[in-house]
Amino acid sequence: MKGRAMRVAILGATGQVGREFLKVLETRDNFPIEELRLLSSSRSAGSEIEFRGKKIKVIEVNEKAFEGIDIVLASAGGSVSKQWAPVAVQAGCVFIDNSSAFRMDKDVPLVVPEVNGHALKNHKGLVANPNCSTAQLVVVLKIMHELAGLKRVIVSTYQSVSGAGKEGMDELEKQTKALVNEEPYAPKKFPKQISFNLIPHIDSFAEDGYTKEELKVIYETRKILELPDLPVTCTAVRVPVLVGHSESVLVDLEKKVSPAQVRESLANSPIVEVWDQPEEGIYPTPIDCAGEDPVYVGRIRRDTSSENGINLWVVADNLRIGAALNAVRIAEYMVANSLVGQKVTT
Amino acid sequence: MKGRAMRVAILGATGQVGREFLKVLETRDNFPIEELRLLSSSRSAGSEIEFRGKKIKVIEVNEKAFEGIDIVLASAGGSVSKQWAPVAVQAGCVFIDNSSAFRMDKDVPLVVPEVNGHALKNHKGLVANPNCSTAQLVVVLKIMHELAGLKRVIVSTYQSVSGAGKEGMDELEKQTKALVNEEPYAPKKFPKQISFNLIPHIDSFAEDGYTKEELKVIYETRKILELPDLPVTCTAVRVPVLVGHSESVLVDLEKKVSPAQVRESLANSPIVEVWDQPEEGIYPTPIDCAGEDPVYVGRIRRDTSSENGINLWVVADNLRIGAALNAVRIAEYMVANSLVGQKVTT
Repeated sequence: MKGRAMRVAILGATGQVGREFLKVLETRDNFPIEELRLLSSSRSAGSEIEFRGKKIKVIEVNEKAFEGIDIVLASAGGSVSKQWAPVAVQAGCVFIDNSSAFRMDKDVPLVVPEVNGHALKNHKGLVANPNCSTAQLVVVLKIMHELAGLKRVIVSTYQSVSGAGKEGMDELEKQTKALVNEEPYAPKKFPKQISFNLIPHIDSFAEDGYTKEELKVIYETRKILELPDLPVTCTAVRVPVLVGHSESVLVDLEKKVSPAQVRESLANSPIVEVWDQPEEGIYPTPIDCAGEDPVYVGRIRRDTSSENGINLWVVADNLRIGAALNAVRIAEYMVANSLVGQKVTT
Repeated sequence: MKGRAMRVAILGATGQVGREFLKVLETRDNFPIEELRLLSSSRSAGSEIEFRGKKIKVIEVNEKAFEGIDIVLASAGGSVSKQWAPVAVQAGCVFIDNSSAFRMDKDVPLVVPEVNGHALKNHKGLVANPNCSTAQLVVVLKIMHELAGLKRVIVSTYQSVSGAGKEGMDELEKQTKALVNEEPYAPKKFPKQISFNLIPHIDSFAEDGYTKEELKVIYETRKILELPDLPVTCTAVRVPVLVGHSESVLVDLEKKVSPAQVRESLANSPIVEVWDQPEEGIYPTPIDCAGEDPVYVGRIRRDTSSENGINLWVVADNLRIGAALNAVRIAEYMVANSLVGQKVTT
């Protein structure tokens, strides 16, 4: 990566994705960081977090917190982003936001760099990171679209509890421990028991019986792929898995292609791994993919219900490609393309 | 129910579904039983099982075991059924088989009584009980077909470990206990870790990258609905749930119908319960449905990817409607329609 070393702030540094930002940045040797500032609410300020062998104190976010910063990586929820994004942009930062607050704003690029990095060129300081389920999906769909043209996309998700943050992971762990010891553990974070159960309800219910999570997959997919009329539907389900989102995806295509052609096209992507020798037990599962960067695809086969459909099974670490890793890749792309530190006029 | 009291044998009485047969029979007050004979392999013979307050000794299945019996409820695997079904039929029994051994045989009715009970009229002694995922699905599909005509069916399953019998349940329980105590527990029954994980692999892999489980859903659905060319596809996934199979189902229909019309039609079925007030947290999850008889349907909504599609979420107890309950209902239907104790010529 070309460009000077960056001054980076993490907003929401003590949260689940905030900590994942740190893990990802530790491994990005070609992303030189001159300064790393860790920001949080007053509740979490004062704690210390280690990064590249040095302890950094977490400070409370305030009006002056973004001064001198080039890039803000934010994952502190929609209301925090709404409050601080304008302040950071005003201070000259690029604000890369993991919340859903700005994703559908037409002036805000919604980006997976390998899919639509070009959309960053017209940024106005604010960039949105897609929903976790969407990010891994569009990586696959983009390749399928280039191969044979997307006609219709049908997704059923199997989403891990880490999509609901550290509290979600805690609830699955504690509830499971209680249940195996035959003790009760009432749901707090999730609307129903998640341990040994499934919940077809992620985020709140919105229009026409869909959850916001399902609508995010539908609308964000169309925006990122720049196919505003693409027929997409989604059923989003929370499953008792700690890390890693899985998706059963049926893609109707314009042209007939073989599973072998799909495998070849997907394998050509630097961020996809095809694990698809099912007779030898080779297909991805969430525990294989947790902590890993690629989008894993298996179970690639002809749809038995249409002429040109393909069924796929897509698994990825929702905290990485679905959150922290994608945000860091956006930052890297912007540095490499000299899109950071411009004067932005709004 | 009319008809005389029946002499019933359970083959595989000590297995997961065998025990569920006993639980279901206990509750069917209008199914008079004159004699209940419990049959098993030599390994499990000799144990005693209580039924309606009386202890019954489990005896080893042999050439004479079916004499004087009217109805055999079998759930001891395909090879056991292949060995003993002809013997039982020769002895004048109706043999209701829960294995997949005979399901696609054109001379064997494959039946969910509420869907295609009429197919029992031409039985030749042998009747097949469908795959668990199929049984709950066709109950819903039949109603949708009568309402608006099925065009295409796309299913992603979330199947509990009890579909793999008692060993499956033991493995999830023991593996989870080990993992929460930070001890290792290698997979035995399942091909990979099932605790805190998902496995997109149920039964063995067959043609074109599909598992046998997925092909069962496809072929059995067509046979039961008597729609041999119905476009159906399925992705079958094992989830860390003890009892209760869930399905994300997209149904493309010939005619446009509203979610309200679908809800009304489904609610009219005596064996379906519609739980669909999502804003109030009313939708089915597996732990709600375990131990219950109905097929539960929620999340009924217009498909956002087609003109006339409907999305649904279908949950049922796989040991009941998916196995023991459906077999007992087949027996009841046959008794009520004087289809038991006929001389069968093959």
